[in-house]
Parts: sequence; structure tokens; C-alpha cells
Amino acid sequence: MSTPVLDRTAQTEHPVLDVLADRWSPRAYDRHAPIDEAKLASALEAARWSPSAYNLQPWRFVVARRGSELHARVLETLIGFNQTWAGAAAALVVAVAETADADGKPIPHAVYDLGQAVAHLSVQAHHDGLVAHQMSGFAPGQLRDLLDLEERFVPTTVIALGELGDVSQLPEALQEREVAPRVRRPLAETVIASA
Amino acid sequence: MSTPVLDRTAQTEHPVLDVLADRWSPRAYDRHAPIDEAKLASALEAARWSPSAYNLQPWRFVVARRGSELHARVLETLIGFNQTWAGAAAALVVAVAETADADGKPIPHAVYDLGQAVAHLSVQAHHDGLVAHQMSGFAPGQLRDLLDLEERFVPTTVIALGELGDVSQLPEALQEREVAPRVRRPLAETVIASA
Repeated sequence: MSTPVLDRTAQTEHPVLDVLADRWSPRAYDRHAPIDEAKLASALEAARWSPSAYNLQPWRFVVARRGSELHARVLETLIGFNQTWAGAAAALVVAVAETADADGKPIPHAVYDLGQAVAHLSVQAHHDGLVAHQMSGFAPGQLRDLLDLEERFVPTTVIALGELGDVSQLPEALQEREVAPRVRRPLAETVIASA
Repeated sequence: MSTPVLDRTAQTEHPVLDVLADRWSPRAYDRHAPIDEAKLASALEAARWSPSAYNLQPWRFVVARRGSELHARVLETLIGFNQTWAGAAAALVVAVAETADADGKPIPHAVYDLGQAVAHLSVQAHHDGLVAHQMSGFAPGQLRDLLDLEERFVPTTVIALGELGDVSQLPEALQEREVAPRVRRPLAETVIASA
């Protein structure tokens, strides 16, 4: 019996950068390797240079390394499904949107710009041989309390960051998903008008 | 007198991919070069393979090429400041968030995921020698009417996409901005907790 090949490269209609075509969101993480601090720093640096409306940079990050109490407590705020796999990640990074400035003035594009910053982070991480999986499934109130955040700071995603692990370590129900083909809607349905 | 060098490379604290360090948001566009269709397709393809919560892909794009009526009308929805420069861009691309599905069920991470998709788009564009500048300054209601969008589709940014032009074509007040150093908050202020 041959070993299944885990090819995660996107089947693109048009050529794109390898790092964009190959980036994917696994659930099997190496539960022993610590986070590579240089790679983590580069991933955060990539986020730093992301564009934002009026260059407000409305993003903050919380980094919790596996083994720390913070990692365990961030893990507890995830929905049960995510808890089954995300604890193996070398780091859990909480991505926080600054939805208003210190004077209470709203920052309307905060969540959008946070998305951009995390995209940069995950592209850099992937380039460096890390993998990232963003999760929206967590208890926001619980996470806010844990991090003692002001109201204007909104925890928006939790990113599992680390090295790829063996798919066989995943709960059986997740193994199939991990190797399923990556799919996207055709571009023709995404471009709703063109002139 | 020597010609000023337009070095837009980020002064990073940690190494990042060239395409991320060099990407920036100019306002001087070549007002003659048409959009390169292959590069436009690759940029949209990069957006297509962006990650999203539950793989819902809550993004849509409207592409308006310079010379079309749509380009002229999208331009009119921009705030006056953006109208002074964005008309030169070979394409204006409207990035639209799908904030609820066809049954009206909210898609909470739509705007965040749209941000990710546009980040992918702009990274690919930059790699291919195009430049992209996202604008939040436009009249959303006017743009929604123009595009005849359902309520659940929210125009979130308009992206000027094209080839870099000469800074001297910009209104004088913008020329200084165009060559000013790119700045970001230090990473130490962005990582608000680490363990």
C-alpha cells in the first residue's frame, strides 16, 4: 500500500505565487516542536507592514506558546471542535481588532485591516515552513476577559501556528478532511461585474 | 541636482519576503497603460485562494477598466481627495463583502475575510509589477446603487490597480506624501501579551 501524497497546492485557473498557491490551513500540528522564535518574529513583522486605512494599523496580537498557562487558557476559550486539534500548535496567536481609538473614535475598517495583517502573517509563516490555521470558533467574551481587553479591542480570530504534524495523530473524523482536495468557487462567480 | 530615489522597501525589524517588504500603496499611476489582463486575472486568482471562515469565500469583485463608463462612475463615488489621483489607475476594483448568505444568515467574518482576500490580491499584483492602493474613502450608498447590490453585499474598499506612474503628475500636495518614508508602529507595541 502506498503512502497517500499530501499535495495541498491549489488548482489555479491563473498562475499565482507559489507561496499563495501552496498555503493552506492544516489541523495536524507537531505537538513537540517549540515555536521557532525567528520565524514567529518574521510572521509578526509581515503583519506589521500590511496596509491599513489611514495607516492606523488597527491590529494587536497576543502570543501564547505551548506549555505556558496562557496557551492552555486560550485553548479553553475555543469551541470543543477546535480544542480537539489546536492544542498541539506550538503557538496560539490571538488577532485583535482595534475598533476604536483611545479617544473612542470608531475605526471602521479595523476588522478588514486585521484580516489583511493576518493574511500577511500567514503568507510569511508558510514561506518559512510554518503552518497557520485561523479559527473563528471561540468564546469572544471569555477570551476578552482572559486577556483583560478594553471594550474597543475585539478578539477576532485565534491562529494556530507551528510546524506541520502527522495526519494520523488527528481524531479519525478529521483525517479525511485534512487530505481532501482544496476547493474554491470559480472566479467567474466571484467577479460580479466587469467592464 | 540628483533625481530623488524612490525606495519603498520597508525598514523591517525582522526579515520578511521581498514581496511583502516592497509592497506599498502609491497614488501615481500610469494613465496610459491599459490593465494587463493576465496580471489582473492572477491577482483575482490569488484572492480566490485566500482562506475564509468555513471556506465561505464571502468576497465579490467588480472590475472597472479605465475608459469604460463603469470606471468613470465608480470614480465619481470616491471622495474628492481620491478623485484627484485614482482616475489614472488602469482599473478600479470594488471589493464587496458578502455579509449574509442568500438565506439571510449572517456571515460574521465576511469583512475580515474580504480583507484577507484583498491582501492576497495586492501581494500577487505587486509581485507581477502592478501597484495597488486601497481606498475606504467613497460614498457606500452611491456605490451600492451604482452596482445595484443586494443589501447583504457591502462595498468595503475600492482598489486602484495599474502600473506605477511618474510622481510629477500628482497634485503638488501629494508628491511629498508619495516619497515620504513608510512608517509603522514598533512590533513591541503591537504584541500586547506574550507568554
